[in-house]
Amino acid sequence: MHRTPLLTSRAINEMTGAELVFKCENFQKAGAFKFRGATNTVFSLSEGEMQNGVATHSSGNHAAALALAASLRGINAYIVMPSNSSKVKIAAVELYKGVITFCEPSLQAREDTLAEVLLRTNAIEIHPYNDYRIIAGQATAAKELIEEGGQFDIIMAPVGGGGLLSGTALSVHYFSPYTRVIASEPMQADDAYQSFYQKRFVPSINPNTIADGLRTSLGTLTYPIIQEYVHQIVRVSEEAIVWAMRIIWERMKIIIEPSSAVPLAALLENAFEHKDLRIGIILSGGNVDLDELPFAKK
Amino acid sequence: MHRTPLLTSRAINEMTGAELVFKCENFQKAGAFKFRGATNTVFSLSEGEMQNGVATHSSGNHAAALALAASLRGINAYIVMPSNSSKVKIAAVELYKGVITFCEPSLQAREDTLAEVLLRTNAIEIHPYNDYRIIAGQATAAKELIEEGGQFDIIMAPVGGGGLLSGTALSVHYFSPYTRVIASEPMQADDAYQSFYQKRFVPSINPNTIADGLRTSLGTLTYPIIQEYVHQIVRVSEEAIVWAMRIIWERMKIIIEPSSAVPLAALLENAFEHKDLRIGIILSGGNVDLDELPFAKK
Repeated sequence: MHRTPLLTSRAINEMTGAELVFKCENFQKAGAFKFRGATNTVFSLSEGEMQNGVATHSSGNHAAALALAASLRGINAYIVMPSNSSKVKIAAVELYKGVITFCEPSLQAREDTLAEVLLRTNAIEIHPYNDYRIIAGQATAAKELIEEGGQFDIIMAPVGGGGLLSGTALSVHYFSPYTRVIASEPMQADDAYQSFYQKRFVPSINPNTIADGLRTSLGTLTYPIIQEYVHQIVRVSEEAIVWAMRIIWERMKIIIEPSSAVPLAALLENAFEHKDLRIGIILSGGNVDLDELPFAKK
Repeated sequence: MHRTPLLTSRAINEMTGAELVFKCENFQKAGAFKFRGATNTVFSLSEGEMQNGVATHSSGNHAAALALAASLRGINAYIVMPSNSSKVKIAAVELYKGVITFCEPSLQAREDTLAEVLLRTNAIEIHPYNDYRIIAGQATAAKELIEEGGQFDIIMAPVGGGGLLSGTALSVHYFSPYTRVIASEPMQADDAYQSFYQKRFVPSINPNTIADGLRTSLGTLTYPIIQEYVHQIVRVSEEAIVWAMRIIWERMKIIIEPSSAVPLAALLENAFEHKDLRIGIILSGGNVDLDELPFAKK
């Protein structure tokens, strides 16, 4: 996989009053951090485990990442995708030779269809985040950030299913124990926030956010790690997400997806005290549908 | 100024059948290569020359670049801008403390207004491209590309007024004499192509292209350099410019402006034989109005 670059922006530092270092997983293969976990998992399978290929249901970045990881190991990836998935996501899976089975756009249909595919192919299921091999893979983004970026007061990541966040928190715990981990989550998909502060698992019900990578519930493996190793979870408005995304596009000239903008959105909304702090931010991915941008052609 | 990075894309290499190395001037200060020439010129002024500031008329990247260069030397930049300039361009000049005078959106009004400003302020005029100090500044982009990128069969740049292209051709001539220089120009603004092959200066009349940086005529200093040191000029369709821009956004996750996409457009349209060649491409800038994208919200 790519060891992705760290970027800084004087303009955004001035805007936020903090010193920010961005870990650019939008430049990762298949366009998102997901490739780290998918690769780690696929390449940790034994010959016997992998002989019938891998499978998952996903409408997002995990699908393309798993297809690419599987193709690099020379095995099939069976991807169940809802029929209303964006053309861009479908094209990405096809590019990496994933074998797509379409289904109705409901969780039930996705799970049922995946069960059929698993029965038919004997492929091994690779969950997008609730798997220690996935979590360990995602943890390498923060590990690289720490290795190259120097001392941080805070490291931030967005939280959806919690694969990236739990991996980030573990890397910080082991490799930079004096750094705080602050997760950022859309107000309108705040199941991780609710789970964290109620100290019990709260599922994501009717999430309504532009940050399409952050709509899922935490997993039984990711939630306990987050509860133990994350220091704080803050929430942001949809307006701040679009605002932060626009600032990163305009000032840094890089393309990030809405989920990636959620940590900067928290700084713009002053969700926590950050003046003069040194903050590492993981930009989770850059897969957007250019025909459906939130700020185009008003 | 920034020593901008070189980026590559396996996907775009496969798509074009060539080995491409992109010099990312979209990451340059003020968002475009223009800062190189503006800085070189402003910092080569004597104390006497610079005491009353610098001035220009520009609706584009030169305005912001000159304002930033002037502010770094602690002098005023008087910028004449047509009243219909995009909000993004105006905001950039304001960010860098340029002193804006608005005028009617015609070349005559721009020149008249600039003459008034020069009379009133005694500032020194800095032309956007027809100036050897500007050309020498722009030449440093290709120089860095050659120094870091290894051997190239071809180096490509877009051509508008010819500051970037003439500088590029000079750098190639002196630092990589076995490399060919191929310029790319929109079919609908092909004055450089006409000038080059008719071997006489042909002005840009009614240019009609999305590549807003490439609508101007060549200058009396840039044209002779181009005629002597450039090997070939090719032309591309508007469709190919948008297609190339989209490919770079989607595959490389970086933001470039339409002018930057013109060289890749030539490869996509097979404007010249390029199979298996190693080609350096200068991505000239990344300043786009996100509310006016060519591929958004169909």
